[in-house]
Amino acid sequence: MSSINKIFKITTFGESHASAVGVIIENFPPNFKLSINDIQPQLNRRRPGQSLINTDRDEADEPIILSGIENGLTLGTPIAIIVKNKDIKKEDYKFLNKKEYKPRPSHADLTYLYKYGIHASSGGGRSSARETISRVIAGAIAEKYMKEIYNIEIVAWVTKVGSIELDKKSIDINKITRNDVDLNILRMPDKINSMKAIKMIKKIKKDGDSIGGIVTCVCRNVPNGIGEPCFDKLEALLAYAMLSIPASKGFEIGSGFNCAEMKGSEHNDIFIKKNNKIGTLTNKSGGIQGGISNGENIYFNVAFKPPSTILKKQKTVFLDGRSTELEVKGRHDPCIVNRAVPIVEAMAAIILFDLILYQKTRK
Amino acid sequence: MSSINKIFKITTFGESHASAVGVIIENFPPNFKLSINDIQPQLNRRRPGQSLINTDRDEADEPIILSGIENGLTLGTPIAIIVKNKDIKKEDYKFLNKKEYKPRPSHADLTYLYKYGIHASSGGGRSSARETISRVIAGAIAEKYMKEIYNIEIVAWVTKVGSIELDKKSIDINKITRNDVDLNILRMPDKINSMKAIKMIKKIKKDGDSIGGIVTCVCRNVPNGIGEPCFDKLEALLAYAMLSIPASKGFEIGSGFNCAEMKGSEHNDIFIKKNNKIGTLTNKSGGIQGGISNGENIYFNVAFKPPSTILKKQKTVFLDGRSTELEVKGRHDPCIVNRAVPIVEAMAAIILFDLILYQKTRK
Amino acid sequence: MSSINKIFKITTFGESHASAVGVIIENFPPNFKLSINDIQPQLNRRRPGQSLINTDRDEADEPIILSGIENGLTLGTPIAIIVKNKDIKKEDYKFLNKKEYKPRPSHADLTYLYKYGIHASSGGGRSSARETISRVIAGAIAEKYMKEIYNIEIVAWVTKVGSIELDKKSIDINKITRNDVDLNILRMPDKINSMKAIKMIKKIKKDGDSIGGIVTCVCRNVPNGIGEPCFDKLEALLAYAMLSIPASKGFEIGSGFNCAEMKGSEHNDIFIKKNNKIGTLTNKSGGIQGGISNGENIYFNVAFKPPSTILKKQKTVFLDGRSTELEVKGRHDPCIVNRAVPIVEAMAAIILFDLILYQKTRK
Amino acid sequence: MSSINKIFKITTFGESHASAVGVIIENFPPNFKLSINDIQPQLNRRRPGQSLINTDRDEADEPIILSGIENGLTLGTPIAIIVKNKDIKKEDYKFLNKKEYKPRPSHADLTYLYKYGIHASSGGGRSSARETISRVIAGAIAEKYMKEIYNIEIVAWVTKVGSIELDKKSIDINKITRNDVDLNILRMPDKINSMKAIKMIKKIKKDGDSIGGIVTCVCRNVPNGIGEPCFDKLEALLAYAMLSIPASKGFEIGSGFNCAEMKGSEHNDIFIKKNNKIGTLTNKSGGIQGGISNGENIYFNVAFKPPSTILKKQKTVFLDGRSTELEVKGRHDPCIVNRAVPIVEAMAAIILFDLILYQKTRK
Repeated sequence: MSSINKIFKITTFGESHASAVGVIIENFPPNFKLSINDIQPQLNRRRPGQSLINTDRDEADEPIILSGIENGLTLGTPIAIIVKNKDIKKEDYKFLNKKEYKPRPSHADLTYLYKYGIHASSGGGRSSARETISRVIAGAIAEKYMKEIYNIEIVAWVTKVGSIELDKKSIDINKITRNDVDLNILRMPDKINSMKAIKMIKKIKKDGDSIGGIVTCVCRNVPNGIGEPCFDKLEALLAYAMLSIPASKGFEIGSGFNCAEMKGSEHNDIFIKKNNKIGTLTNKSGGIQGGISNGENIYFNVAFKPPSTILKKQKTVFLDGRSTELEVKGRHDPCIVNRAVPIVEAMAAIILFDLILYQKTRK
Repeated sequence: MSSINKIFKITTFGESHASAVGVIIENFPPNFKLSINDIQPQLNRRRPGQSLINTDRDEADEPIILSGIENGLTLGTPIAIIVKNKDIKKEDYKFLNKKEYKPRPSHADLTYLYKYGIHASSGGGRSSARETISRVIAGAIAEKYMKEIYNIEIVAWVTKVGSIELDKKSIDINKITRNDVDLNILRMPDKINSMKAIKMIKKIKKDGDSIGGIVTCVCRNVPNGIGEPCFDKLEALLAYAMLSIPASKGFEIGSGFNCAEMKGSEHNDIFIKKNNKIGTLTNKSGGIQGGISNGENIYFNVAFKPPSTILKKQKTVFLDGRSTELEVKGRHDPCIVNRAVPIVEAMAAIILFDLILYQKTRK
Repeated sequence: MSSINKIFKITTFGESHASAVGVIIENFPPNFKLSINDIQPQLNRRRPGQSLINTDRDEADEPIILSGIENGLTLGTPIAIIVKNKDIKKEDYKFLNKKEYKPRPSHADLTYLYKYGIHASSGGGRSSARETISRVIAGAIAEKYMKEIYNIEIVAWVTKVGSIELDKKSIDINKITRNDVDLNILRMPDKINSMKAIKMIKKIKKDGDSIGGIVTCVCRNVPNGIGEPCFDKLEALLAYAMLSIPASKGFEIGSGFNCAEMKGSEHNDIFIKKNNKIGTLTNKSGGIQGGISNGENIYFNVAFKPPSTILKKQKTVFLDGRSTELEVKGRHDPCIVNRAVPIVEAMAAIILFDLILYQKTRK
Repeated sequence: MSSINKIFKITTFGESHASAVGVIIENFPPNFKLSINDIQPQLNRRRPGQSLINTDRDEADEPIILSGIENGLTLGTPIAIIVKNKDIKKEDYKFLNKKEYKPRPSHADLTYLYKYGIHASSGGGRSSARETISRVIAGAIAEKYMKEIYNIEIVAWVTKVGSIELDKKSIDINKITRNDVDLNILRMPDKINSMKAIKMIKKIKKDGDSIGGIVTCVCRNVPNGIGEPCFDKLEALLAYAMLSIPASKGFEIGSGFNCAEMKGSEHNDIFIKKNNKIGTLTNKSGGIQGGISNGENIYFNVAFKPPSTILKKQKTVFLDGRSTELEVKGRHDPCIVNRAVPIVEAMAAIILFDLILYQKTRK
């Protein structure tokens, strides 16, 4: 399914090397100011070629609004936005020829072939990370509304690359901003460790290899009462959204996997009076109890594997099973966590906004 | 939403202390042999009071079929199954009285109140783990079909409790069975460590405390081509399903969070010829590439927090913010990972079966 | 699919001769007073055996609440309600034996067999009008809320039976009540014509035959702005809901099929000032323009075919094509339009309520 | 909602005077030959300016494929197709200025304002019939597949315009083709009556008025077993789809509203042996029993009101209730039934194809 959500419905389309990728956004509130200027910044944070630690593929990713917005105001009707594909280099992908076809290890080439009996002739096609442009567009739109109406703030950053970790003391989860995050190209808001990591990634790039990492995200000022048990729990939908991002391998909320080692007497978040409302002393729950937001910060981690495209020679097989080798030439992304930051933010926004609209049906 | 899936649709209902919990299952294939005997074993593995390391609340959980099955055969029409609630002990929950209402820390009491302005007067109501009975029923039904038609095997077990971990050498992910898992009451298939862990949990129970843990699950013989990108990727739906289980805090598939430290050249699963088909030498991908199954084992971990109900005295507040203390009397579950095992299996089955039916639309 | 709607979601189950029929209602507003007394009156208007012009099959149809309501208040969680089947007379349906199986003309026996390769051994099974109990329950619940909060009134009546039509001058669509409608057993609010029609139906019943008819429905005080173009137009969903009722063959709204003969200058509803709001002078639109309610009365007709069960001998075939005859013994409904009245009202309520909740997402 | 269907999912977008209208089509089978040549013919039959009895607005409506098709083959991924809007004449619609705003009678201007608090500044915006371009595109694609794989034939024609009706003896519902239908510009396959009707419509156009009509549609060779009770009955979804077409006011299937006057003994379709299968002697059911296709012809009528845009002066009001007059200048469509023919066919195809794919989940 290329659509997500029940009210704030997002439907995406587009292959990496076809004429465009795009998105239809249904049920965005009418009469709201919106323009491409609200979208472009996050697209820029996502785009390839943005820094020396990313692929050299350079695409500007300019959104074109086809419907749903007139004179700068939303109409309440479907918002359709496309981004044309410009940098189509088919010669980089000669190995995909039918005759001597070699599926690329840990890409989706073979599974698309299993599923559909066909796949796009160039690049990742539908499985390409280029598809995430549509997510970033929809997320930016949801975010603008939630920022204006609820003052919701969604900020993600890189917590780990390879074995280099952010020093948690370097950030304040209650205050960290995108500006803080963007102080370095890696989006790891820790001066010393980010420098180490950037150096390491440059080495990885030069080697034609790639490296994994972890992105952390916090959502502040989310109204309490958001989330639809028993299946559409807030954390369940966040997990779904994050694991739908290409290359993600894990999701944990609040205490996450560390909860396994904890006792209930340690893990329970004791209620206290806070700003004249009920809050919690600790936040092991990550802002969610029973699948519903409690007004505290929602925070979670997403693990990303190292990009599968590497320039090193790899063993593989032809479709008939004969052994062969694969050597990809051209550009590659040694690490995608810095580019994943706006995508994680977008997916969080897309999920939160749908649940906020859903909760309105009870008022 | 109390419903999940698009074709093999599951809709559940029921509060923990109301008259029944139950499930409607839509679009299960017609003309298939099915009876409560196919459901009871997994319900028994889920039920409270099953062992000394669980709550003493003892409920038999007998399913009653209301529709959709006749003379032992499914009709293709909705299958409705209920389990009556028997062990209703309202006196255990006096603290929920309106007058001196104290929400229980890290329970859903307060968030349900935020969301609905009301919640069930006794126990967890809809947020109770009793709701998972419906999931186990639906999962057992899906499993029976998938076992018979595709030989799919879904086996989960406990990998970690507190800081005690299973020795991975003690299991073979290709062969481990539910019988192996059930050799001890903890469902940790490791003789030595399970003994240690059971001893530890008994101590925790005696202390009125609780402890978290991790459940691992493998799905074998899943046909390739299953999963619906770009949003309904197989791992995304598994993450959604697992995080919808009460008390879960994290999900990771294949290499999981460890992928962050790996290079592409280490992480890529090289293709090889295997039983005359294309397989992979390693399986960091966890059986899924690009959101679609590749025929290898699908395996993942789910983290469960320590149960929030503890018998130790806890600080909390009244709704108006005044400080108070809470002391729960009665029964409690010191650890739910052994009971989570059949629930994780059920949710995996529910997701896999929907995607298998979905893929049939392409044949 | 046995579920309908996106927010106020209804999922039904049950065969006519299994142990129960029932319904799960999701997302009904919490904290609302609700009991079986709100449901029973409409169930009574639907039930068989209610009058001499209906089947003699007599079933009380008592709803049992399983979840979602506590101490007379809704919890916001799924409301599950069942009605047990009591009057199971398998001997009436001997002709359904496998050996000499004869599908009943214009019933769903054969099409269920085509679709599922099996069908319930007794009566209509899932295709029986007994399934509409679930609809009437859900509709009654939606209606109570809409009446209290919006003063919405939904009233249906019989407009035609055979060739006997209601004299339109005998009713005022702005004022007609269910009490007016229930003044005679046919629910045709026209003293003279209803008497004629009842007499005619008694004759039809005695002959073992059946007769069709038309039900008209008006929905008053529906807020403007309801309906979700471009597909989920209010009239489109009403048409869907009405044609999903067993035995219905047609739907028309406002001017309906008569619009074909009209000119735009006749058909257009001129805007006028009405109670300090904008209203229309005429109402050919039936209260809907562009798929969205305009605040005027919504009214429509639904055609019902004569019940397929007749006691007259009919020609038919065995599954292998050999000619044979079919003679049903027992009870039959000569006319179902008077029983269809509460079902039409229920389906209207179910659709309106979902759209009202949907529109709240824009506030 | 601008999306329809569960598997063969259609999502549309676009205002009449924005830059484009378009459609995303999900889950169309992969590896199928498809090009704009498969779409253009039906777009031509829908387009304005196609004949003297339609509006003079002339738009070529050329589809542009953005994704999902490569080298003439479908990829299984979302197919996105747009049609650019060319003929934007804002000056025709001056009356929509904010200052002296007058909603047009029986248009959606006012109800869109009620619903969204805003509407497109020019023409019908989202409520314009221009939106049906997206439906025709999706329908043409579904049709091509169903024709090739199942030999399904969908043919619609005009049965009535004003009081002029087709002579039913002039057509054979088992054989009528689109070529037969297109022999005259009205698409009423009856030489004498179409001439009369065309003459009448020309007069209506000259008068600046408009006229309603009825379209009939037959679907042949639909496999038996299609349709998803108890709500998604085949006739229910057809009714929904047809009433979602702008300007439609009624739907009837098989015997339709005439069923009201019939006895069961007349209406029941007796089973007979037909081409070595079970068929029915008559077809009052319209090819559907219990919501499921039985293999006979599916046929139905759709009523269309006279277009609301007329050039005659009309009384109306300003938003504050003051009386005024409205006189539209420019082009108008005196009758849209001939243009509705391909739209009715498209919507039938869209519904049938989804249900056919759904039924595959049972094989």
